[in-house]
Amino acid sequence: MTPQDAYKELKERLHEIAILGSCEAVLGWEERTYMPRGGAKLRSEQVSLLAGMLHERFTDPKIGELIAAVEGTDIVADADSIDAANIRELRHDYDKETKLPKELVEEKAKVTSLAQGEWVTARAKRDFKLFLPWLEKVVAIAKREAECFGYEGEPYNALLDRYEPGAKTEEVAGVFAELRKDLVELNKKIQNAPKKPDESIIERTYKADLQAIFGEMVASAQGFDFNQGRLDVTTHPFCSGFGPGDTRITTRYNPHRLNDALFGIMHECGHALYEMGIPKEGNFGMPISESTSLGIHESQSRMWENQVGRSKDFWVYFFPQLQRIFRSAVGDVSLDDFYGAINCVKPSYIRVEADEATYNLHIMLRFELERALMKGEIKPADIAGEWNKRFKEYFGIEVDHDANGCLQDVHWSAGLIGYFPTYALGNLYSAQFFAKAKADIPGLHEQFQRGDLSGLLKWLRTNIHQHGRRYRAKDLVVKVTGEKLSHKPLMDYMTKKYSEIYGI
Amino acid sequence: MTPQDAYKELKERLHEIAILGSCEAVLGWEERTYMPRGGAKLRSEQVSLLAGMLHERFTDPKIGELIAAVEGTDIVADADSIDAANIRELRHDYDKETKLPKELVEEKAKVTSLAQGEWVTARAKRDFKLFLPWLEKVVAIAKREAECFGYEGEPYNALLDRYEPGAKTEEVAGVFAELRKDLVELNKKIQNAPKKPDESIIERTYKADLQAIFGEMVASAQGFDFNQGRLDVTTHPFCSGFGPGDTRITTRYNPHRLNDALFGIMHECGHALYEMGIPKEGNFGMPISESTSLGIHESQSRMWENQVGRSKDFWVYFFPQLQRIFRSAVGDVSLDDFYGAINCVKPSYIRVEADEATYNLHIMLRFELERALMKGEIKPADIAGEWNKRFKEYFGIEVDHDANGCLQDVHWSAGLIGYFPTYALGNLYSAQFFAKAKADIPGLHEQFQRGDLSGLLKWLRTNIHQHGRRYRAKDLVVKVTGEKLSHKPLMDYMTKKYSEIYGI
Repeated sequence: MTPQDAYKELKERLHEIAILGSCEAVLGWEERTYMPRGGAKLRSEQVSLLAGMLHERFTDPKIGELIAAVEGTDIVADADSIDAANIRELRHDYDKETKLPKELVEEKAKVTSLAQGEWVTARAKRDFKLFLPWLEKVVAIAKREAECFGYEGEPYNALLDRYEPGAKTEEVAGVFAELRKDLVELNKKIQNAPKKPDESIIERTYKADLQAIFGEMVASAQGFDFNQGRLDVTTHPFCSGFGPGDTRITTRYNPHRLNDALFGIMHECGHALYEMGIPKEGNFGMPISESTSLGIHESQSRMWENQVGRSKDFWVYFFPQLQRIFRSAVGDVSLDDFYGAINCVKPSYIRVEADEATYNLHIMLRFELERALMKGEIKPADIAGEWNKRFKEYFGIEVDHDANGCLQDVHWSAGLIGYFPTYALGNLYSAQFFAKAKADIPGLHEQFQRGDLSGLLKWLRTNIHQHGRRYRAKDLVVKVTGEKLSHKPLMDYMTKKYSEIYGI
Repeated sequence: MTPQDAYKELKERLHEIAILGSCEAVLGWEERTYMPRGGAKLRSEQVSLLAGMLHERFTDPKIGELIAAVEGTDIVADADSIDAANIRELRHDYDKETKLPKELVEEKAKVTSLAQGEWVTARAKRDFKLFLPWLEKVVAIAKREAECFGYEGEPYNALLDRYEPGAKTEEVAGVFAELRKDLVELNKKIQNAPKKPDESIIERTYKADLQAIFGEMVASAQGFDFNQGRLDVTTHPFCSGFGPGDTRITTRYNPHRLNDALFGIMHECGHALYEMGIPKEGNFGMPISESTSLGIHESQSRMWENQVGRSKDFWVYFFPQLQRIFRSAVGDVSLDDFYGAINCVKPSYIRVEADEATYNLHIMLRFELERALMKGEIKPADIAGEWNKRFKEYFGIEVDHDANGCLQDVHWSAGLIGYFPTYALGNLYSAQFFAKAKADIPGLHEQFQRGDLSGLLKWLRTNIHQHGRRYRAKDLVVKVTGEKLSHKPLMDYMTKKYSEIYGI
C-alpha cells in the first residue's frame, strides 16, 4: 500500500466515523431539546451503542497502521501543510484514545455515572463530605490516566492536553498568576468605586417570546445563517455542530433577567460561527476540519458575548432596536445606563453567573486546586477548606456552604479534570485576538455602531476559522497576533471598560 | 452451540439492530420536523450510513445460521408460542432481505431516487408520458423482485407479502370486489340524496394554535401519553415509534379547514397507541415486539379517526369542548349539523383528500392496476387510460388531467408496488374489529358520550396490541372477531351512518 493509498483510506474511514459521530450529535441535541421524559432509557441505549461503535472504529489498529504508513513520507514533508497537521493531530488523538486500557475506560464510565448522582445529592445537602469518597475515586482515576498518557513535567499536563492539545501547565499557570494579581486589584477598586450602575434595569420584565425575536435578530447580525442551523430552548445552553450545513445553538429565557438569554445566544452563536467557518469540504472527519482546541473555541464565544455584545458601540445600534421591542422595560432608559446595567460587577459564589471581571478568578481557583491534587500537594479531603480559603482571598467574601463552593460544578463528578483552564484561556485569547482585530480593521467601532458585524466575522474567518486544527493554540496566537499569550490585552480591555463605568 | 444459546445470541443481535434502527428513526423524524434546509446533504449521508449498517447486520449469514439453529427445536415446538412466532417471522424477513441480489437492491435505490424527481416534474406538468419510462423501469424491477422472492399463484403475492405478510392477492381481490360493488352503489345513492350536510362549517376560521390545543386534548383522551411521545408539525403527517417509551406523531394545521389536523391527529394517534401498546420488554428487536402488518397498523389509525372521531357519540362530549375553543366558528352550530359537516361525502380526484365513503374506491383502483401490471395483462403505457376509464366507472366523473389521476401518488416512483391494498385492508379490519368491540364492551356508546375512550383502548390492548406479530393478519382477524375478513362490517357501518346523514 502506497502512502497515498493509506492516506486515502484513512480519510474515508474518518469520514465515516465523523458521519456516525454526527448521528450521535443529533441524538444528543434532540435529547436536550424535545425528547419526552419516557424516552430517556432508549436514548441512553442509542447513544451508548453509537459511542461504543465510534470508539471501536477509531481505535481499530488499522487506523494506527494507516497513520504510521503516512508518517515520515512526502505527504507530511511540509510540517506546516494541511496534510502534516492532519497526521500530527490524528497521531495525538489516536494515542490518547488507545493508551487507556479498556478496564480503565470502563471503570471511569461506571464511577462517573454514579459520582454524578452522588454529586447531585451532596450539592442538595450542601455537604462536601458526602461527595468526598467519589472525588477520591475520580482523582485516583485521573492520576492513572495521566500515567497511561505519559507526560513531561507534571501529571496535569497529560490531562490538560486532552482539551488544549500541546498546552503546558507551567506556562498557563504563569499567565494565570499575573492575571490573578491584576484581577484581584481591579475587583477591589470596583468594590470601592464611587459610581455604581443600576443593575435592576435588566431585571425588569422581558417576555420570553420577544427575547427570542430579539435574540434571532442579533444572531443573524452576527452572521448565523438560519438556513444552516437553529436556535432552540434547553435547560443548559450549548452549541452543537452536527457537520457541514447544520449547526445548532440553544438558550433559555428568564423573563425577569435580560442578560441570560441575550448574551447566552451571542455566546453560543460565537461557537456556532466558528463551527460554520471551518472549511470541511473534502476533509470532514479529519483534524483540519475541527476546531483548534476548547480554549480557542471559547475565545470565539466569549469575543462575541463580551468584546462585541457588552460593548457600547454594539448598543449604539442595537439599543434603539431593543427599546422598540421592550418599550415598557427600557423605553425610558439611557444608553449609558443600559450599558452600565449589562456590565455590572458583583462578586458571587457561582461561576456560571459571574460577570466578566470576576469570572476568571473562579476558573483560576479551580485550576490551582486541580493542579495541586494531581501533584499530590493536597488531598481530595482538603478541597473544601482550600476552596474556601482561596475564595476569601480572591473575592473578599466567605463561602457560606459547599453548594456555593466546591460542589457547584458538574465537572469533577464527570471526570473532567483539566477542562476548567480552557474557559480562562478562552477569555485571554479572545481579548488578544480582538485587540488585533481592532488594529487590523479600520473603522471597526463605526461598523459596530451601524450594526454591521460582518467585518469582524470576516477577520475571524480569515485569521482563525480557516485554519481548523492546522496550528496548536499557542502557535495560532503568535501567528495571528505576533505575540505570545499574555494577560495584558484582557486587563487593558477590562481596565478601560470598568474605569469608565465605575469611575475608577 | 445449543439452540438456547443460538436463540439468546439472535435476540442480542436483533436488539442491537433495533437500537441502531431507532437511531435512524430519530434522524428521520428530525429531518421532517426541525432540520434546517442546509442540513439535507449531511442528513442523507447519516441516514444512508445507518441504513447500510442495518442491512449489513440483518443480512449477516450468521443471522441465518442462528435462525436455522433454532428452527425445528423444542423452542418452537408450540407453533402458537411467542418464540415460534419470533422464529417464523424472522425467517420470513431474513429470506425477504437476503433473496434480493445486491445489484438489484442498488439498481432499485438508484432508479427510485431518480424516478421520484421525474415524478415531481411529470406531476407538475400533468403529463404521464414524462413519467412512463420511469414507471416501466420500476415495474420491471418489481417483476424481478417477485421472481427473486418466489411466490405461489401470481407474482403480486410476492410484493403484497412484504407489507401484509401471508396475505393472498386472490383473497384480497375477492373481498375488494364485493366491497367495490356495494360502495359504488352507496355512493350513487349519496350523490342523489335529498339531504345534504353543510360542509362550509368546517371551512370557517380555526386558528392553528387553538387547533393544537384541542388536538392534544383529544389525543390525551385517546390515551396518548405525552410523557412518552410528542406531537409536532410536518408537511406530511406521520407516526414514528422510536422504541420503548418514545413515540412521535405529527400533523399540519390548515386554519381554514378543521378536519385535516383534527382527524389527522386522531389517525396518527391510533398508530401511536398501537406502537405504545405492543409489549417490548425483553423482546425489543424481535418480531413479537412489532406490529402484525401495515394493514393491521392502518386498522388502528382508521378506527380512531373514523369509527371514533367521526361518530356522533364522540362529539356528544367533545363538541361542547370544541365550541368553547372556537366560539366564533361553531358557537351557533348544532351537533347534528357539525356531525354532518365532518362526514360530508364528495367524490374527488385525490385519494389523500377522500372521505370515508369514496376512499376505498381509490385504493381498489390502484390495486387492480398494480395486479394487472404484474400479471402482464396491461403495460405501463396503458396506465393513464386504464386509470381514467375505471375512475369514471367507480366515481362517475372524468379525470381532467394526469396530476389528478395516475400521477397523484408518490408510491410507484418510490418502488412501493404492493403497498396500496394495505390502506383498504386497514379500513376493512377496523370496521370488523370495531363491530366486535361494540359487541364486547357494554355501554361503549355511553362511554364515548362521556368522553371516556379508555374502554376501547383497553379492548384494543387486550385483543390486538398485546399480540404484536404473534399471528398473521388474516388469522388475527379470525381470532379476534370469530369471522374471516369480510366487507360486511364496513358496509353495515357506512350504510347506517350515511342513511342517517343523507336521509337515504
